[in-house]
Order: sequence, then structure tokens, then C-alpha cells
Amino acid sequence: MKLYDGGRAPNPRRVRVFLAEKGIEVPLAPVDMGAMEHKGEEVASRNPLRRLPVLELDDGTVICESVAICRYFEELHPEPALFGRGALGKALVEMWQRRMEFNLLAPVAQAFRHIHPAMKEWEAPQIPEWGEANKPKAIAFLRILESELAHREFVAGDEFTIADITGLIAVDFMKPARIQVPEDCINVRRWHAAMSARPSAAA
Amino acid sequence: MKLYDGGRAPNPRRVRVFLAEKGIEVPLAPVDMGAMEHKGEEVASRNPLRRLPVLELDDGTVICESVAICRYFEELHPEPALFGRGALGKALVEMWQRRMEFNLLAPVAQAFRHIHPAMKEWEAPQIPEWGEANKPKAIAFLRILESELAHREFVAGDEFTIADITGLIAVDFMKPARIQVPEDCINVRRWHAAMSARPSAAA
Repeated sequence: MKLYDGGRAPNPRRVRVFLAEKGIEVPLAPVDMGAMEHKGEEVASRNPLRRLPVLELDDGTVICESVAICRYFEELHPEPALFGRGALGKALVEMWQRRMEFNLLAPVAQAFRHIHPAMKEWEAPQIPEWGEANKPKAIAFLRILESELAHREFVAGDEFTIADITGLIAVDFMKPARIQVPEDCINVRRWHAAMSARPSAAA
Repeated sequence: MKLYDGGRAPNPRRVRVFLAEKGIEVPLAPVDMGAMEHKGEEVASRNPLRRLPVLELDDGTVICESVAICRYFEELHPEPALFGRGALGKALVEMWQRRMEFNLLAPVAQAFRHIHPAMKEWEAPQIPEWGEANKPKAIAFLRILESELAHREFVAGDEFTIADITGLIAVDFMKPARIQVPEDCINVRRWHAAMSARPSAAA
């Protein structure tokens, strides 16, 4: 088994944090995304979408998409349960995982890709107006998250889940995207500090 | 139990098709999205993101996000398995479900929302340049899907899954978004015709 890893990029880190929380070690095959190595044949022959991370099993089977790779390990190693427990628990984790993804990680990524000069080659055409339009979307969602986190410790309830991982990665990605968590979002700030203090955050 | 439903919009339909494939009947509470009723208090008090569909359980618990609602029913009624079987099967369905969502449904939706005159009120600011930039993204993914579907009947393998449902909804949504499946994508066309012929497609 081998995980084609993309270093500091958000999605590769999402899987590494998940594995660290599970206590699972997977051999990494580093791919230098800065040198655009993920657009080369080694990745393309495994993932036609040319994106990372990519998990290759010993028989050559390939699993792409961060959350799909995480789910594979969740099924093999159910504890700690990072996708929730029971029908309702699993549904609520999926709900929050998707909310963090579509309403925070996605707009932050769009702002980064369409505004940051280093992304000119990656995102063609870069449309700065679209990048800017995404900043208030991310902030509006943080305000909803703020009122939710007033009542509980983690994003999806009383247990740490993949929704917290996606949220941590999204908030950390706000720095290069030049978006700030509003000062008055004290619950989001408390939650983000707690997630950053977990050993897995260094993965 | 009550499903707040949004009629012809893609995400409400995604859940209705899923329920039809499972043979599950859930009482619907219709919300008129054309009249912007989903922005009103009835929906907002249940989903602060003001989006549909929303599932309300008898005890008042609310599940939002189409795929989270589908997963809830998958856990309660495992057959037919629409999220895959076993660790690898579930991971591959998740992989394809996400590929259909991020690389087809999302760009088609962006093209629709940023170009169609009826969406001016929904998507502010409308950025037609961004809408146009999404059309080739959708087409590029259809060409990858075309080569995959040369080898199998369904998107994620030999069984019908939620990835087919997301794909059906995405291709149908191409019509109002004014994007066409290329003539030479014969496998995509064969697959789409087969999905459209299933009784669930009328849901």
C-alpha cells in the first residue's frame, strides 16, 4: 500500500491528519506539487483527474478523492469512529462534513486559486472577481458555525470527527487565501485553537 | 418524518430518485423555490443555510444535505446497497460519487447560476465569465467518464449506485445550463439513456 502525497496542499493534509487520528501508518510516496509533478504520468496513469492524494493498494487498485480514502480506512479500522456512529450519527457527520467542505473549504480554495499570483498556471482563466465573491461566502458560513459551536465542543457533536478535520484544514487555508476569522467569532477561534493543539494537526 | 422538498431543483430530485430506488416512501412538504420560499422562516428555522432538501424526523431532529439524507436511509435500509459493499466497494462508490459531484454537477451548476438570467437574484454577483469557464471543465470530465464507461455498465462498477444518480441529475441539468454531451461520447449517452429509462428517473 502506498499513498501518493502532495505535501502542504489541503487535501493531502486532510488524509494525513485522518490517518494520524486513527493511528494508522501508510508509506508515503511524495509528489512535488510545486514542480507540478502531479500533472505528470506517474499520477495521471493512476488518476486521470491528475489530483492528489491517491492511494494505491498492493494489488494495484487505486482509490482517489480524500474522503473516499478516509472512508476506506474507517471501514477497515472503525475505532475511533471519525464518520459517526449509527444511522443518525453517520448522517449528521456527513451533513457537517459536507457543510464544511462546500461552504468553507470550497470558497476559501476558490478565493486562493482565483486571486493568488502563484495560482496563475493552475487556474486558467484566473477570475479575480470570482475569487473576491467567495470571501464573503466563507465569512457568512463562519458566522453560522459560530452560533453552532456555542453549544458544543466539536463541529458535528460531542465527538471529534472528519468534519473537524475538514474545518481545521479550511481555516488554516484561509491564511494564504488572505481571509480572516472575524474577531468576534470566539467559539470558532476556541474550536480552531483546540483542533490545532491536537498532535494530528502536525501531520 | 417529513421531507421538505424543492421540486425540480437538482438536489431535491437527487433524494427523491434515491428513495424511489430504495422503494421508500417519505411524506413530502413541498416548498416553492420559484417563489423563493426556501429563503423563508419555515426552511431557515430548520436549515440556517436556507437550502433544500431538509429531512425532519418525528422528534424534530433535522438532517440537511442531500447525500447525508441518502446515507441516513442507506443505514436504515441497507438493500439495495446504493453506497457500495465492503471497505473497497464503499470507497470506490464514494470516489465516483464525489467525482460526479465536483467535476460534473458543480461546474454545470456554476454555469447555470452565473449565466442564466433567471438566476440573477439567486447568485449575486453573477459573473458570466466564471459561468463560461465552467463549461469546458464539465466537458473535459465527460471525456474521462466516456473512457471509463467503455468498460462497465454503471459509473462505479457493476451495480447501480448513488454515483449514477448524481450523474443522471448532472447530465439532465446540462440542458438548462446549455451544455451538450459531445456527440462522440457514445458510452456516456448509452449510460444516460439507461439511467433515464429507470422508473426512479421520474421521481
